[in-house]
Amino acid sequence: MQRDDLSPGGDHSAVSTTPLPSWSDGPAKAAILDFVQRVTTPGPDFLPRARRIATFDNDGTLWCEQPLQVQFYFGHQRLEALVRKDADLKQQQPYKAYLERDIAAIKQMGKQGLFEVGATAFAGNTEDEFDAEARSFLAGARHPKLGRRFIDLTYEPQVELLEYLRTNGFKTFIVTGGGIDLVRALAEDAYGIPPEQVVGSSVKTRFELRDGVGVLVKQAEIDSFDDREVKAHNIGLHIGRRPIFAFGNSDGDLAMLRYTLTGDGPRLGLLLHHDDAAREFAYDREFHLSPLAEALDHAAEYGITVVSMKNDWRTVFVPDATASAA
Amino acid sequence: MQRDDLSPGGDHSAVSTTPLPSWSDGPAKAAILDFVQRVTTPGPDFLPRARRIATFDNDGTLWCEQPLQVQFYFGHQRLEALVRKDADLKQQQPYKAYLERDIAAIKQMGKQGLFEVGATAFAGNTEDEFDAEARSFLAGARHPKLGRRFIDLTYEPQVELLEYLRTNGFKTFIVTGGGIDLVRALAEDAYGIPPEQVVGSSVKTRFELRDGVGVLVKQAEIDSFDDREVKAHNIGLHIGRRPIFAFGNSDGDLAMLRYTLTGDGPRLGLLLHHDDAAREFAYDREFHLSPLAEALDHAAEYGITVVSMKNDWRTVFVPDATASAA
Repeated sequence: MQRDDLSPGGDHSAVSTTPLPSWSDGPAKAAILDFVQRVTTPGPDFLPRARRIATFDNDGTLWCEQPLQVQFYFGHQRLEALVRKDADLKQQQPYKAYLERDIAAIKQMGKQGLFEVGATAFAGNTEDEFDAEARSFLAGARHPKLGRRFIDLTYEPQVELLEYLRTNGFKTFIVTGGGIDLVRALAEDAYGIPPEQVVGSSVKTRFELRDGVGVLVKQAEIDSFDDREVKAHNIGLHIGRRPIFAFGNSDGDLAMLRYTLTGDGPRLGLLLHHDDAAREFAYDREFHLSPLAEALDHAAEYGITVVSMKNDWRTVFVPDATASAA
Repeated sequence: MQRDDLSPGGDHSAVSTTPLPSWSDGPAKAAILDFVQRVTTPGPDFLPRARRIATFDNDGTLWCEQPLQVQFYFGHQRLEALVRKDADLKQQQPYKAYLERDIAAIKQMGKQGLFEVGATAFAGNTEDEFDAEARSFLAGARHPKLGRRFIDLTYEPQVELLEYLRTNGFKTFIVTGGGIDLVRALAEDAYGIPPEQVVGSSVKTRFELRDGVGVLVKQAEIDSFDDREVKAHNIGLHIGRRPIFAFGNSDGDLAMLRYTLTGDGPRLGLLLHHDDAAREFAYDREFHLSPLAEALDHAAEYGITVVSMKNDWRTVFVPDATASAA
């Protein structure tokens, strides 16, 4: 029977002449190439395509998350529009901190608090309205320090890795603490990942008929905040099988990494360490939105391969799509 | 960029010499062939593969749901095992009705009540334990009246239709009121649909490390009962795009059908009418677990194509895999 999850590429290792060109030769790249070779080559570690499930965190793993995650800036733009209609919002917390880009206060409210502000700000949107607003934002919004558009701050080595995995028969998923529909608005173009392979934080919706058209209206109530253990829960809910490959960058990804690494057979779990102040940012323990301590301290014990942005990546960002126009 | 959702088959209509051989020539088959032709052929109705999302209900749409849905029999087997450990259960409702196969009482508790009993009965199972029990059940359990194994009561015309859609670049999903993990245990073999393309009713899970292995433990609490409007909500959550094709058989599928049919561009929504007492069962309004009234009464108004099992299907069930051994 023809199956739905067949993507192109042979069952045998289809390593091209120069896979992962943006990755430096070193232990991380070697671990990836070795793993993919083993699961795609007949032998004791071979796995059929149906088992080749790979999950990636998004913020800080596939694109830049500093000084704040992109969804903050998206929520900020939305709140500014709301304030033009209701000036009182400006004096209310947590909107005040948000509107004033008070990063210390925002870090204090944490990732979930940040998502909740967004949930409130976008309540009432239909799925199409939200998608249009997200795409419009992503088409133009720029990073406050790096100057590039956010969508040009996706990581070139990871785009190569996603494609390399798919070429070798993997099905690639995003499992993000970010809002599921914001990430869906970029994942297809930026990463080649279709909406149904994006798992993320979500709000409840309500099905309504508006002028005879069925729409899904976003509610202010959180359905799922997709962080830590909830990432494992949502992998069970959305994917329904244990990944064999996972890539994260914070303790928020630890449950996903351990869920992946503690199954039978070949497994690979990677953790991106942001240690590259020159090309991006250097942070781990001190970053309160996504602390990285346990995963780093126990990487060897848990079987996690740590990837150094500074040493393992020859390039960091994808080419700037607007550079020629600038 | 290579994409994950590319399945084999050309973008142009790849109608084989005899598509859908188990479908009788008639308006339903003609509507399907015409629709697929239009969305896959360059012209005003052409849609790229990414837009070709098809969703199917399961119970009563892809396999037999009478006299009770298969998950009842699965829950029943589980409860009988629990009673052997705790005889008191036998005297407690709703378990008593369940154990005594008191169909009138079970219909009274409704589909959600039935799912809740199952949720209680399987609480504490890990995902792997549940999957093994489901597969063991499906390998042997037989329908009380028809004698065949439940998995041999899937509908041949629908298996053909799923495959025909995939051959034409559609991605096929199940959106079921049944328990998501029970349906996943059969969907890959029976329908060619991988676990991540099954959406259904679910319980909350808890991520735990047991002897160093990360597992998802099923809780008794319902996460989502995937019926009526919730089917549309869960399409938004799991799939993230509006289907262009939907197939159901009850008012429980109406929100999914209307969500599908009220979008822009070409759409097809089908409703299976069980009017075949000779080969399967004949029922609609009087069946209390899945009433069918509004969808049937308003089919023309809503643009729903009604499929008559009696007139539109040349065969009903797949071949009996155990027949030669019997």
